[in-house]
Amino acid sequence: MSSRLIGILGGLGPDATVDFLARVLRADGADTDQEHVRMIVACDGTIPNRNLAIDGAGPSPGPALAQAALRLERAGADVVLMICNAAHHWQGEIERAIAVPFVSLIEEAADRTLAVAGGGASVGVLAAHACHAAELYPKALRARDLHPVLPDAAERAEFMRVLAVIKAGDHGPTPKAEMRALAHALVRRGATTLLAGCTEIGIVLRPADVPVPMVDTTEVLVQLAVALGRGAPVRRGRPDG
Amino acid sequence: MSSRLIGILGGLGPDATVDFLARVLRADGADTDQEHVRMIVACDGTIPNRNLAIDGAGPSPGPALAQAALRLERAGADVVLMICNAAHHWQGEIERAIAVPFVSLIEEAADRTLAVAGGGASVGVLAAHACHAAELYPKALRARDLHPVLPDAAERAEFMRVLAVIKAGDHGPTPKAEMRALAHALVRRGATTLLAGCTEIGIVLRPADVPVPMVDTTEVLVQLAVALGRGAPVRRGRPDG
Repeated sequence: MSSRLIGILGGLGPDATVDFLARVLRADGADTDQEHVRMIVACDGTIPNRNLAIDGAGPSPGPALAQAALRLERAGADVVLMICNAAHHWQGEIERAIAVPFVSLIEEAADRTLAVAGGGASVGVLAAHACHAAELYPKALRARDLHPVLPDAAERAEFMRVLAVIKAGDHGPTPKAEMRALAHALVRRGATTLLAGCTEIGIVLRPADVPVPMVDTTEVLVQLAVALGRGAPVRRGRPDG
Repeated sequence: MSSRLIGILGGLGPDATVDFLARVLRADGADTDQEHVRMIVACDGTIPNRNLAIDGAGPSPGPALAQAALRLERAGADVVLMICNAAHHWQGEIERAIAVPFVSLIEEAADRTLAVAGGGASVGVLAAHACHAAELYPKALRARDLHPVLPDAAERAEFMRVLAVIKAGDHGPTPKAEMRALAHALVRRGATTLLAGCTEIGIVLRPADVPVPMVDTTEVLVQLAVALGRGAPVRRGRPDG
């Protein structure tokens, strides 16, 4: 078998992993089993909580992320992707643990946002606490001449509350409406494009649910996995660092 | 981390793998990422077609199944399960490739069917061509004093047609109605319990859709994965052989 085996570091959370896999199966255009993109998926939720770790309130997920990536490499993965934005704060630890390339969702999503929004645009960033605290998207957007529009402290706390509801298995109208309200707040503050910078957002909120274009990072990862699975060149490392 | 890592040999097909994973996340009772069952999932559809292989019309999937199981073992899996009934015909090749235990879905599902139907009952078996041709369920059911009620040649061909529709991504009312019609035919022929012996069936047909109790092998595998993930003893090998 000559096609690439795509390693997926998932389980952060597991629902986002299932959402991602279901979308890959729709996006890869396959009608038979044999045409689908080949994947090996670590679905291990026991990796320490990223949002506690960033505050020093819990253990670092870095070693567990590195170990999960190493499991994928040992299983034969040719490239590793991670279904979680915030965990990219520990990307360096992951890359040091493996010899195969790790492709950053943050860089891919920022590129996609630039293509959608156009240079100079104001981009509203919906993301989990750790992703904001590590400034993953503000840095990546500013490096592309985009202006991040960020939630305030109350909105960040509300996001974390809704995120816990989604992670606990409620994917219905209530978390969807609450997530939409958080998106609208960023639009009122001037965002002309939204960046759904947490892979749980897309479980409840789709681009059609918001009044401006929205880049869904799960969809970015889906397109990336399909392209890599079909033989697209692997982009390694961070172009800006 | 002391909890077991469950290796899942999937991708046969990928939609059944996603259905399985989604159900595990509902069944394991977790409210946070960290409480979920730990899994590593090979989602590789390129394993050769089982239904062609059983007729000698295509290459054996045995070596690819063995390689996928070995990938899971190298990734640290403590036990391996497979989301496909028919592929259990090549269980011996899988077991010879790995040192960790492989738990048979066929034996688990036959045990569950006995518990549901009671000894001496007539059990209608819905399954793919390779599963029928290898007589996986007739043998396992007869070993438990259960009487298999099998589809005729035309019904087997119709099953394979509907299965291809489901594998191509149509999970709507048409394949559901067609699968239900196949189930009803077995009930008319005397089955008092149904065994959904193909993991694609449960994508469209649920127990509530048929007039007699139905054992869904995807659900059997879900319960098995959760139990093993929570530390249940591993049952190895075939008790009847």
